[in-house]
Amino acid sequence: MVDAAEWLTARGASVVLAQEEAAAAATGARWPTAPREGIAKDVDVVIAFGGDGTLLSAASAVVHANAGVPVLGVHLGHLGFLTEVRRAELTDALASVLEGRTWTETRLLLEGRIERAGSIAASRFALNDIVITRGTLSRMLELDVSVNGEHMSHVRADGLIVATATGSTAYNLSAGGPVVHPSVDAVILTPIAPHTLTNRPIVLPASAEIVLRPLLEGAPTDVVATFDGQFGAPLQSGDAVVIRRADRVLQLLRTTTRTHFDMLREKLNWNR
Amino acid sequence: MVDAAEWLTARGASVVLAQEEAAAAATGARWPTAPREGIAKDVDVVIAFGGDGTLLSAASAVVHANAGVPVLGVHLGHLGFLTEVRRAELTDALASVLEGRTWTETRLLLEGRIERAGSIAASRFALNDIVITRGTLSRMLELDVSVNGEHMSHVRADGLIVATATGSTAYNLSAGGPVVHPSVDAVILTPIAPHTLTNRPIVLPASAEIVLRPLLEGAPTDVVATFDGQFGAPLQSGDAVVIRRADRVLQLLRTTTRTHFDMLREKLNWNR
Amino acid sequence: MVDAAEWLTARGASVVLAQEEAAAAATGARWPTAPREGIAKDVDVVIAFGGDGTLLSAASAVVHANAGVPVLGVHLGHLGFLTEVRRAELTDALASVLEGRTWTETRLLLEGRIERAGSIAASRFALNDIVITRGTLSRMLELDVSVNGEHMSHVRADGLIVATATGSTAYNLSAGGPVVHPSVDAVILTPIAPHTLTNRPIVLPASAEIVLRPLLEGAPTDVVATFDGQFGAPLQSGDAVVIRRADRVLQLLRTTTRTHFDMLREKLNWNR
Amino acid sequence: MVDAAEWLTARGASVVLAQEEAAAAATGARWPTAPREGIAKDVDVVIAFGGDGTLLSAASAVVHANAGVPVLGVHLGHLGFLTEVRRAELTDALASVLEGRTWTETRLLLEGRIERAGSIAASRFALNDIVITRGTLSRMLELDVSVNGEHMSHVRADGLIVATATGSTAYNLSAGGPVVHPSVDAVILTPIAPHTLTNRPIVLPASAEIVLRPLLEGAPTDVVATFDGQFGAPLQSGDAVVIRRADRVLQLLRTTTRTHFDMLREKLNWNR
Repeated sequence: MVDAAEWLTARGASVVLAQEEAAAAATGARWPTAPREGIAKDVDVVIAFGGDGTLLSAASAVVHANAGVPVLGVHLGHLGFLTEVRRAELTDALASVLEGRTWTETRLLLEGRIERAGSIAASRFALNDIVITRGTLSRMLELDVSVNGEHMSHVRADGLIVATATGSTAYNLSAGGPVVHPSVDAVILTPIAPHTLTNRPIVLPASAEIVLRPLLEGAPTDVVATFDGQFGAPLQSGDAVVIRRADRVLQLLRTTTRTHFDMLREKLNWNR
Repeated sequence: MVDAAEWLTARGASVVLAQEEAAAAATGARWPTAPREGIAKDVDVVIAFGGDGTLLSAASAVVHANAGVPVLGVHLGHLGFLTEVRRAELTDALASVLEGRTWTETRLLLEGRIERAGSIAASRFALNDIVITRGTLSRMLELDVSVNGEHMSHVRADGLIVATATGSTAYNLSAGGPVVHPSVDAVILTPIAPHTLTNRPIVLPASAEIVLRPLLEGAPTDVVATFDGQFGAPLQSGDAVVIRRADRVLQLLRTTTRTHFDMLREKLNWNR
Repeated sequence: MVDAAEWLTARGASVVLAQEEAAAAATGARWPTAPREGIAKDVDVVIAFGGDGTLLSAASAVVHANAGVPVLGVHLGHLGFLTEVRRAELTDALASVLEGRTWTETRLLLEGRIERAGSIAASRFALNDIVITRGTLSRMLELDVSVNGEHMSHVRADGLIVATATGSTAYNLSAGGPVVHPSVDAVILTPIAPHTLTNRPIVLPASAEIVLRPLLEGAPTDVVATFDGQFGAPLQSGDAVVIRRADRVLQLLRTTTRTHFDMLREKLNWNR
Repeated sequence: MVDAAEWLTARGASVVLAQEEAAAAATGARWPTAPREGIAKDVDVVIAFGGDGTLLSAASAVVHANAGVPVLGVHLGHLGFLTEVRRAELTDALASVLEGRTWTETRLLLEGRIERAGSIAASRFALNDIVITRGTLSRMLELDVSVNGEHMSHVRADGLIVATATGSTAYNLSAGGPVVHPSVDAVILTPIAPHTLTNRPIVLPASAEIVLRPLLEGAPTDVVATFDGQFGAPLQSGDAVVIRRADRVLQLLRTTTRTHFDMLREKLNWNR
């Protein structure tokens, strides 16, 4: 990160660091800093250094600020599905950004609202997935799933993942869900360790409104709705989690010609 | 079938029976008959009695004749995903047809062309799936898969299924593929018993052009491309199977308010 | 339960009720009661009424008291893998017990010890499974697995199930593990939602000593070892969970000729 | 192979080459040759050069000749589960053999008999698996499975694999079966692309007698029983395939301290 900041500063670009990262890297007063959530509003491009988790955080800041700026992911160790630039390609990528030789990929976002007693208890966006899980105290999660107002299924499982195509290669894949190409306009519902063996992953149109109603008994539970593995909202008896396509999108900044299939082959060892 | 023919004739409708079925049912000269492929051109509605396999045959006749008429499925035993009318509902369904109280569901078709030495060796449509499989003599199928001209993967498996959303609940489901709602504009590639464990099902946009190139050695092989489990074309060394969305569709005639989720719940025991 | 108690009392048998159940059923002073854990020592047979969860509790009481008495499972609703007697068969089953027309099935137990800083922090038996899971706060569980002192694998997943053959049809099955016949002398290691897609269930000899070392950072974690889904022990950094075949077994009392395959067919719909 | 033959000859060992391999390698009259099946009777050790397929052939020759000599596998390209010696380790391994610094692993074999009209139409041994599959002409295989004379299940699938623990990492793994450690005394039944989603792999004791009765209609079918992927026997209507533990075993010669877990980690990328 510091190298990139030096390189960009030397070429006349203004650099603002996220407070947390600047503190961790002990950059002193070398560059101005700002809270992650605040930065997004005032910059032209957000660059995330790290794994897919870091990019999800950066994307969340951009999306929740409704900033609309593109996000570029640079991975420091292993290639991520969202962080395609390698360390060795960093200078080339930064030059591409300064010279405008980039392109953007538009990624669909989900919006999840927790409805409680007639009002909205929480509302968040997600790039990868919204997941309802039982806690370690519970033995099972029971969930009613309806789609566009129609009852779809009753799920008994450890949890249920509602994933975007972008998120299809993340938690969804571990739980047995399919890979979905980002250009398919769809959401995926994948149960985690379902009790009913026929309760298979299902791919629905992105336009579907999905309502999840966990069946909770008693007051305190440890059932949680988690957004992109980063923000968790405890659920209460009677809650409904309403998930639909967000009215905003994420712009992923791309600087290489690497394709989605290239990444799949490399990450999933498809070229062995 | 005979009951339905009687009922329709009594109400002034013209009935033509498929030759094969008429012979099997020994209907004599009671109704005119015609070859299955020929009927489609001259009727307003095709009614298939039997399981999903029968409906696939009827649909194939309609589609290959480019007849454009809708097809209604009546199941005699078990509910099928494509044959929703139960025997007990038959009269109601026929009345709905005569009175025009029906609606149609448009289902995407795949077109598969076998390209051999610069020309087209075979070309067929499929409603459910086009499947490449090794025969019992071979130990493994090796296949190069490219999508829109880009190399996607190298598959070593018993076979590869290219399924529509309609076909997602058929062979694709047995091989571990996801359920895909018919309103999602997608095709699914699902390997059968893949050697590489990370070779997971992938959902691609329906607009994708998929080219499958089996790696065959020597002249006679038992690798076959099968369309809807009904029509098989042996493949030769050097063949490419080119699969894309067809320029025609199938109209499924619907007479009940049963939804896709109703059928999923019933067929997959999701309501247990 | 009350019916059974009446029936047995009328035939001269001594009945002791578990305190919790007696209170719930408001049986007053009709029969003596005792704490569940205490009963096991003083009776000839333990009868559990309810689902597999109830039988697991009763078995746990018998096993931890080292009582050695057999346990009979009577299910009130759905057939369980451990509770084979139907309500309608109850009188026949009780008569068989009084007349000694029963047989027992010996089921292997696991013993799990949590080793912490050189001493044993907890030690429990399990009939079905010992499961290590991340809590809802954690994003992933990382675990080193060694078998008989040899490093086997590094698991990154939601959790890891160590199941007996008895437990193979419980949580193990939901997580993708195989059915294992109770007469196979084996334990099964099945990851829950593994990040590495090749991290497949593995069946080991029952004689294997399995040591699981979760990689935990910082002091308070929400990683838990759960025994039969009923007893949870929070794990700390540096803990080792040592799992081996117990030096005691459970005697399942059987009164019908129903076989394991009968139950598999019925529970898994294999006879469709 | 030639290098090994030279090395062994130079040290006074007698070498006999398999006719087929000698011809392919054009070794002329440098060493005596014999048919593969015949060699096994007259040597102290059989060495197979190639992949797991080559070792299966060599093992088959030894086993069907009831020769009882141990088999050593040397892989030329990729590590196999059965061929652990790398090319670079070849000289060390040969020296170990000459000096008796080796150990053997005993592997269970299956015997499969095809019973037809009261007599035995074929009988073969298998080290990895016996597989019943439908051909490309059939749409589905239907099979009745019984174990020790008791009906277990009715399978509708592409095929059914009966695998040993040794074979658990071969075809069984591709079809979704579990890894089973060779020291577990068990056989695995794994359906290939089963129509019933609850038709999961099951692990049975090695002592089980498994009888498979394919439901075939009409005279000529393309249903085949395949032994170790190498020997195929077409099945006829009314046939029963009877599978039990063989009365002989295979001795795998081992020269390294590589463990089964080492091989699993390397082959399945468990150490990533």
